[in-house]
Amino acid sequence: MKVNCNPIRGTFDYSPKEMIVREKVRNIILECYKKSGFMQIQTPILENLSLLSSSDGGENLRMMFKTIRRGEKLDLSKQDLTEQDITEEGLRYDLTVPLARFYSNNKEKLPTPFKSIQIDEAFRAERPQKGRKRQFTQADADILGDASENAEIEVLWTAISAYKALGFKGLILKINSREVVNELVYFAGFNSDELGSVLTSLDKLDKIGADGVRSEMLEKGLNEQNVEKLTNALSKISENGIDEVDNFGVSAQAKGKLAKIISSVKKFSGDCVDVKFDVSVVRGQGYYTGTVFEFFDSSFNRAIGGGGRYDKMIEKLLGVSIPAVGISIGFEPTVMLMQEKGLLNVEEKSVAVLYSENFEKAFEVKCKLIDEGYNASLYKKPKNVFNLLTKLKDNGYEYYADCDKTAEVQKIN
Amino acid sequence: MKVNCNPIRGTFDYSPKEMIVREKVRNIILECYKKSGFMQIQTPILENLSLLSSSDGGENLRMMFKTIRRGEKLDLSKQDLTEQDITEEGLRYDLTVPLARFYSNNKEKLPTPFKSIQIDEAFRAERPQKGRKRQFTQADADILGDASENAEIEVLWTAISAYKALGFKGLILKINSREVVNELVYFAGFNSDELGSVLTSLDKLDKIGADGVRSEMLEKGLNEQNVEKLTNALSKISENGIDEVDNFGVSAQAKGKLAKIISSVKKFSGDCVDVKFDVSVVRGQGYYTGTVFEFFDSSFNRAIGGGGRYDKMIEKLLGVSIPAVGISIGFEPTVMLMQEKGLLNVEEKSVAVLYSENFEKAFEVKCKLIDEGYNASLYKKPKNVFNLLTKLKDNGYEYYADCDKTAEVQKIN
Repeated sequence: MKVNCNPIRGTFDYSPKEMIVREKVRNIILECYKKSGFMQIQTPILENLSLLSSSDGGENLRMMFKTIRRGEKLDLSKQDLTEQDITEEGLRYDLTVPLARFYSNNKEKLPTPFKSIQIDEAFRAERPQKGRKRQFTQADADILGDASENAEIEVLWTAISAYKALGFKGLILKINSREVVNELVYFAGFNSDELGSVLTSLDKLDKIGADGVRSEMLEKGLNEQNVEKLTNALSKISENGIDEVDNFGVSAQAKGKLAKIISSVKKFSGDCVDVKFDVSVVRGQGYYTGTVFEFFDSSFNRAIGGGGRYDKMIEKLLGVSIPAVGISIGFEPTVMLMQEKGLLNVEEKSVAVLYSENFEKAFEVKCKLIDEGYNASLYKKPKNVFNLLTKLKDNGYEYYADCDKTAEVQKIN
Repeated sequence: MKVNCNPIRGTFDYSPKEMIVREKVRNIILECYKKSGFMQIQTPILENLSLLSSSDGGENLRMMFKTIRRGEKLDLSKQDLTEQDITEEGLRYDLTVPLARFYSNNKEKLPTPFKSIQIDEAFRAERPQKGRKRQFTQADADILGDASENAEIEVLWTAISAYKALGFKGLILKINSREVVNELVYFAGFNSDELGSVLTSLDKLDKIGADGVRSEMLEKGLNEQNVEKLTNALSKISENGIDEVDNFGVSAQAKGKLAKIISSVKKFSGDCVDVKFDVSVVRGQGYYTGTVFEFFDSSFNRAIGGGGRYDKMIEKLLGVSIPAVGISIGFEPTVMLMQEKGLLNVEEKSVAVLYSENFEKAFEVKCKLIDEGYNASLYKKPKNVFNLLTKLKDNGYEYYADCDKTAEVQKIN
C-alpha cells in the first residue's frame, strides 16, 4: 500500500538548500544572543496541560496539540467522556510558558537576573490558509528578575544586534506600553472589566483601521462617549507622538519609562531599525504587563518578531513575583525574508567525488579533499552524469572531482 | 495556585552548562557529517499515524505519543470509541520513517544516491525507570539508493569520523548481517515463519547469555534439535570468527559482503574504534534487511549508536524498491559519556559587566568587550556580589568586569 507521503497539514519538510539557510540563520541569532551574554537552555516539547492552560495564552490555548493518555490511564468506556478525561500533555505553543516553569524549578541555581536563550520548536494548530506554520521555530531572549527598563534596553539591543548580523536594514520597531494604554483606556472612562475587551479591539488597528476599531467597540456595546474619547486620544497621539499622552491622563512615570526605552534604543538602532512609538501595538497574549514591541519589515504583513514585559506570569507558577521581559525573533518569517531579499551568501564548498570502479582510490581522494577543507562525498558514475551533477547542484553542491580523470576539483556548470 | 514545575515524566530541562555541551556535540557531529558530503534535511515532529504505524517499528509503535483530533473531527459521544476514533497524528519515534517519507515525496529533486543528515528530536513513552528519555535527540546519516556495500563503508566512515572528532577512543563496533543470520537460522532447520521469533531471542544474547537464549527458544516451543544446531553454530562462530560461517550453510555472497565491510572499516577505524564481527547483533526493528551494526563504549551498558541496511522500507511507501543504509548516533548517551569522560573542553569567555548606577557607561563596556571577542552582559550589583558571581560561574561564566572600578576583565574565583 502506498501511504500519503506529504508532511501533515500545516507542517513542512526542509530540503538541503533550505536547511543550509535555516542552520546559518539559527547560528547567527544564537551567536548574537550569546555575545550579549545570554545563556541557552532547552525544555521539552511536551508539557503538562495544567501548565499550558494556566497561562494567559489567549488564542493559543484553542490551538494546542494535545496527546492522549496511555495505557491504563485511558478509559474510553467511561460515560460522558470529556477532553480532559483522555488528555494529559500538550505540545507547547510558545517558549515563554516553559521558560517560566524552568525558572520556577531552577531559580536557586540561576543568577539574578537570569538572561535566557531558547531557539526551539513550538506548535499551534493554526488554520493553514492563514499562511502560518503549525510547527515553527522561535528564537527567544528573555531577562527574568529585572524590573527596570534596563532589561528592555538590553533585550532590544540583543535582538537588534541579531537583525544587524543577519543583514537587515530599514526594519520598523514599534514600541508601546500596556501601562500607557491602560491609563488611556481608564482616562476615556472605561472600567477594568472592560479593559480586556477594549485592548482586543485596539490590537486590530493595524488590520481594520481606526474606523474599524471604533465600530467594533460600539458593536460590542461599549459606551459611545468613552469610545469617542478614546479614539480621539489615539488619533491625536498617533499624529503628535508620545508627548501628546500628557493631555490624556497618562502618568509621568508610565510615559517616562517608555520614553527612556525609546530614546536609548534609538541610539544604537542605526540604519537597521527605525524605532517608533506606536500606541496601537498591544499584542494578543494576556500575560503582557508593561512594554510591548514588534519588529516589522515593509515587505511582510505581520510582525517578524516581538515581545514585551510579563511581570505576573512567574508569580502564577512560583507564587513569588518575578519581573520579566522577553523578545522572540520569529524564525520562520525571518528566514523567508532573508531568502527573498538574498541577504544570505552561504558557501558550502561541497565536492562530488565521481568514480567508476576504483572505490578505494576515490575514498583516498575524498579524504584528501576533506583535509583541504572541502565537504566531499562519493558518487559512482551513473549513465547520466549530467543529471546527477544537476541534482547535486540543486541541493547545494558546487564542485565535482572525476577520479577516472585527474580528480581535480571543478565547478559544476 | 502553584502548579507542578517539573518537566513531565521522562523528559528533561537542560541548564546553560549542559546546553554548552549539547550544542558543541551537535555542532561537531553535524560538521563531520557535512564534511563527508551528506546533506541536512528536517521533517516535522508530528506525522500521520498511518505512516508511523505502517513501518516495522517493533516496540516503538507501542510507545508512541499520539495527538487527539481537533474540533469537529473529535466526537466523544460516539459509542464504542476506539483510539483510532480520537487520534490522527503521532510524535515520531525515530528519524528513519520520516526520512523514508521525505525521500518518497522528493525523490525527483534529489540526487541518487541521496545522503541525508538529520539531527533532531524523537519521542518514545519508554518506562522512565529504564533510564531512557522520552524526548531524545538522534544524529542520523543515511544513504538512500545505493545497494552496494560502499554505502555501508561510507556511512560507517562518517560516523567514525564524528566519534573521532568528539575524542572517543576504544569504542567497539559490532557488525553483523541479517543475511548471514537468516541463513544460519534456516540452516539450523527453522522455517521463515519462525525466523522473527528466533531473531527476537537472539537479540537478547548480550543480556541473557547463550543459555538464556537457548531456554527462551525452547520455552517458545521451537524445535529442540534446531535450537541445539543453531546455538552450536553460534558458539562456534563466536569462538572462531567469521570464517566459521562457511561450516554452517552461509553463502559466499552473504559472507563476502560482510567481510569486505569489516576489513574496509578496520582500515580507517584507528584507535577510536575496535571493529568486531558479532553474530549476536540483530537489532530490534523489523525493517533491517542486511548489515546491522552497533557502537559500544565499555562504560555504558547499551549501544551508543547503531544502524544498518533497510532495503524494503521505502518500497512500502513509494512502491519502488530503494536500497538504504543508515547510522544513528545516540546523542543522549554520547553527551552523557563525554561529560563523564571529560572529553569536552569548552571555553565560553563570558564576562559579567557589573555596575551600580551608570548603566550607559556599563553598556559601553559591554559593547567594547563584545568587540574584543567576549560574550558580555550587564548585571547591576546586588548586595551580595559574591553570590551573583558564584551563580554566574556555575552557569558557565568565567569573567567579570567591575565598572565602578577599572572595568578590567578579571577571572571569577
